Amino acid sequence: MEGSQVSHSHPYEPKDLQLPGYVPVVLSQSTIVGVYGVASLLVVSFIWILSGRLGKIRKIDRVLMCWWAFTGLTHIILEGYFVFSPEFYKDKTANYIAEVWKEYSKGDSRYVARDATIVTVEGITSVLEGPASLLAVYAIASGKPYSYILQFAISLGQLYGTAVYYITATLEGDKFASSTFYYYAYYIGANFSWIVIPSLISIRCWRKICAAVQTQGQTKKTKVR
Amino acid sequence: MEGSQVSHSHPYEPKDLQLPGYVPVVLSQSTIVGVYGVASLLVVSFIWILSGRLGKIRKIDRVLMCWWAFTGLTHIILEGYFVFSPEFYKDKTANYIAEVWKEYSKGDSRYVARDATIVTVEGITSVLEGPASLLAVYAIASGKPYSYILQFAISLGQLYGTAVYYITATLEGDKFASSTFYYYAYYIGANFSWIVIPSLISIRCWRKICAAVQTQGQTKKTKVR
Repeated sequence: MEGSQVSHSHPYEPKDLQLPGYVPVVLSQSTIVGVYGVASLLVVSFIWILSGRLGKIRKIDRVLMCWWAFTGLTHIILEGYFVFSPEFYKDKTANYIAEVWKEYSKGDSRYVARDATIVTVEGITSVLEGPASLLAVYAIASGKPYSYILQFAISLGQLYGTAVYYITATLEGDKFASSTFYYYAYYIGANFSWIVIPSLISIRCWRKICAAVQTQGQTKKTKVR
Repeated sequence: MEGSQVSHSHPYEPKDLQLPGYVPVVLSQSTIVGVYGVASLLVVSFIWILSGRLGKIRKIDRVLMCWWAFTGLTHIILEGYFVFSPEFYKDKTANYIAEVWKEYSKGDSRYVARDATIVTVEGITSVLEGPASLLAVYAIASGKPYSYILQFAISLGQLYGTAVYYITATLEGDKFASSTFYYYAYYIGANFSWIVIPSLISIRCWRKICAAVQTQGQTKKTKVR
């Protein structure tokens, strides 16, 4: 009896959440955050240097390529793993990505509880938006005409997903964080970039596209005259 | 005891869903569907005639104006009512829109059960996409440069919402319809247009925008030469 209670104990809220077979996080918080930070920095540096050698790509586009590579790999690797590993919380091998989600669940236990809305939003994000983000890196580098509309589409998807993420949690009583620290550090902090950056990109693409459509309209009028 | 059981009884699945104070549907199915059909036909006819008198609007754009008026009013009036009327299932006045949702819930009881994901998706749809759809009617009529990107954004939002709608139901066991008839007639049938039409509009807008961006690119190159 005692043993079964111990094996069911976990650090998540709400406390009555049943997680039979849960294996606690092994890696420290600084290791988990540090590895993600260093890996992201490597990706960004690689894309920055590579895009610099391709020639004639404007700085703003090089920054965008870094963002799309970073967010695309995050969607595919981290979020993709979550979607297709329903039993990650039982992992005993200290698998880095399983550890990431065990740790992140302290900020939002809906991950470890496998909430259907979370799996759905993460599924759309990892399967559609992940590969599309990597396509955006290529589209910007090679100056494809679909570059703006693709970036706009992914950013809008990210914003829709984030909206669903926060609104459902609020409607369900905002009770999924283990402490105020994890609430702000993980639940709010870790998602903050995915509100600000997609908003900025959406506005930029909207303007670029409107300008192009307007120019085309004027060209047509000139030709008619 | 008997009385309390009767007052808790309802036609929805799963049967153990608690709906204290539920008042059964009064209007017939044909009345509910008929009124929506006739009202939609009136809206579409009005926009079709009006757009014909505005002059120089292409037929495809007039059809799109009809769609945006229809879908926009559906989002704002029907879905908006649902979002802001958590107790619609207790309505005793045979309020038409409350009856619509009582009836529709036979195809998907998550509406009457006030599932957080449904409220979230319907909230985004009614509050953001509804007014944006009416703006699209105006944008097409007045040939605004943002017409394509606006239509693209709303269509993508509709598709994202529909994806969340179906994926969450599937993950939760697809157990929310009262019968196979309601499953196909309401849950599948009533939402079908919001998969097909937004897909077609997204593809069209994507192409139009790519063409405009390409033309602008060529114009710039010509100027540089």
